[in-house]
Amino acid sequence: MITAAVAGPAPQAPELPTSEVGHPLDLATQLERVDEQTLRGASSDAYWNMVGPFGGLVNATLLRAVLEDPRRQGTPVALTVSFCAPIAPGEFQIRCSLLRAGKITQHWALHYTQGERVVASASVVCANRQQTFRFAPAKPPAAPPASAVPAVQLAFPFKWLERFDFRFVGDAPLPLEEAAPEPLSPRSVLWVQHAPARALDMLSLAALSDVFFLRIFQVRRVAVPMGTVTLTSYFHASDSELSACGTSHLLGVSDARVFHDSFNDQTCELWSPDGRLLMSGTQLAWYRA
Amino acid sequence: MITAAVAGPAPQAPELPTSEVGHPLDLATQLERVDEQTLRGASSDAYWNMVGPFGGLVNATLLRAVLEDPRRQGTPVALTVSFCAPIAPGEFQIRCSLLRAGKITQHWALHYTQGERVVASASVVCANRQQTFRFAPAKPPAAPPASAVPAVQLAFPFKWLERFDFRFVGDAPLPLEEAAPEPLSPRSVLWVQHAPARALDMLSLAALSDVFFLRIFQVRRVAVPMGTVTLTSYFHASDSELSACGTSHLLGVSDARVFHDSFNDQTCELWSPDGRLLMSGTQLAWYRA
Repeated sequence: MITAAVAGPAPQAPELPTSEVGHPLDLATQLERVDEQTLRGASSDAYWNMVGPFGGLVNATLLRAVLEDPRRQGTPVALTVSFCAPIAPGEFQIRCSLLRAGKITQHWALHYTQGERVVASASVVCANRQQTFRFAPAKPPAAPPASAVPAVQLAFPFKWLERFDFRFVGDAPLPLEEAAPEPLSPRSVLWVQHAPARALDMLSLAALSDVFFLRIFQVRRVAVPMGTVTLTSYFHASDSELSACGTSHLLGVSDARVFHDSFNDQTCELWSPDGRLLMSGTQLAWYRA
Repeated sequence: MITAAVAGPAPQAPELPTSEVGHPLDLATQLERVDEQTLRGASSDAYWNMVGPFGGLVNATLLRAVLEDPRRQGTPVALTVSFCAPIAPGEFQIRCSLLRAGKITQHWALHYTQGERVVASASVVCANRQQTFRFAPAKPPAAPPASAVPAVQLAFPFKWLERFDFRFVGDAPLPLEEAAPEPLSPRSVLWVQHAPARALDMLSLAALSDVFFLRIFQVRRVAVPMGTVTLTSYFHASDSELSACGTSHLLGVSDARVFHDSFNDQTCELWSPDGRLLMSGTQLAWYRA
């Protein structure tokens, strides 16, 4: 149930020393190896959403399964996750198949299961990038620096919202008293960082890739049944390029083209503070509204 | 080898009576059932590309495997295809697993194999759409009607190009004598239809979803090694809404955000002549340039 929201500068939690207790993201995505192709994990209260884990946590957990696989070569360039069924609290297993390894790319297929049930599946592409032609025709959205935008404490009772520092450029997507009489713009821009702050790497970026509210809420501002069906993220930076971003906020933009008979598309981008596109993504979402 | 291109009005081939010989797309995507989960097919010269079949044919063939599965419920809403390895001429098999069937969505996983080798994999989501909230914030690109745009015969020696009627709004993407000294815009707009014309349905739309030239060629206009790594298409219309488009040309737009160290994103949209978004897609492409 979405209640109310209090805007204002959020207390910036200190960065936890990962060596001692670990960042919540690292703890929540921890996996134990069962055999060469199988890993085991358990749900985390720290990233719980309305009815299941925050999608970005599932995204990051599936990517981590590949990142920690000794067969992996290169860095992730693409990740598609299909959310097949509600994910229950408790244990899960990830089965990780290397479909094909070439000189340039590796193709992985993953199944995220609870008991006999496949609750999510994923494909991951890793690649050996060559330093070659670069061209960046797209530009980041106009926005003041993150330091000039107040953090917003969103008083929705979902734990995962406490795991991020949201700084909306323009109005925060707060619920309305009644459904918007006319749909609002699906576009939103925000600065975002983990809370507590965490240095940027592929795991962090995969979690941030799903930090954008579902666009049906953005345009109608009412709580209706809704969910991500499938989410695709492309990563446009190397490990060292991500590492160079440190714990800076990233500039995110999300939009949608069409809402049609219970499904809509949703696009997103994550930009470094110096204007480099680090991730672009798209998802198909379902709504009952 | 890309040679030269002759622009001018293309002779509009008559629509073949599908009942007699079948449209090339229907013939090229024909599948024979091996068992409940397995289908068999063979490559088609009619859609051959430089080194393998046209990606849109693979897209359509994988979708057809689901469309013809007796377990299928609802219509396709999402399709992600990963191109894992070069596809050789000759036979292939498709293995089709229904991962999960709920009330609203079905999630499918497909493997496209030649011998023991997985050359492509796919995920498909089918759904029962409810006639509910509709909102179309995105608008089609400005373009004169298809009838006012001359068809272009692209004299590249690739058979698949003969299977489509391309009508570029603005310059056709013809190769340059030398690489463009500065990258050109990655954006292009065109009217497109099958050749011979074919009534619109999910199969036709899946093939059209990959009709956009790779953006590295669009910006540099030189033939370098390049290929689609993974392609995601979302379908925003029902069967009857597609059927209502008949054999009209669709308005396509494609763009890219960033080319970085041998990979770039590519986006695309296909619009009906009356301005409805039928498909939106994204792909990650590789290049050596």
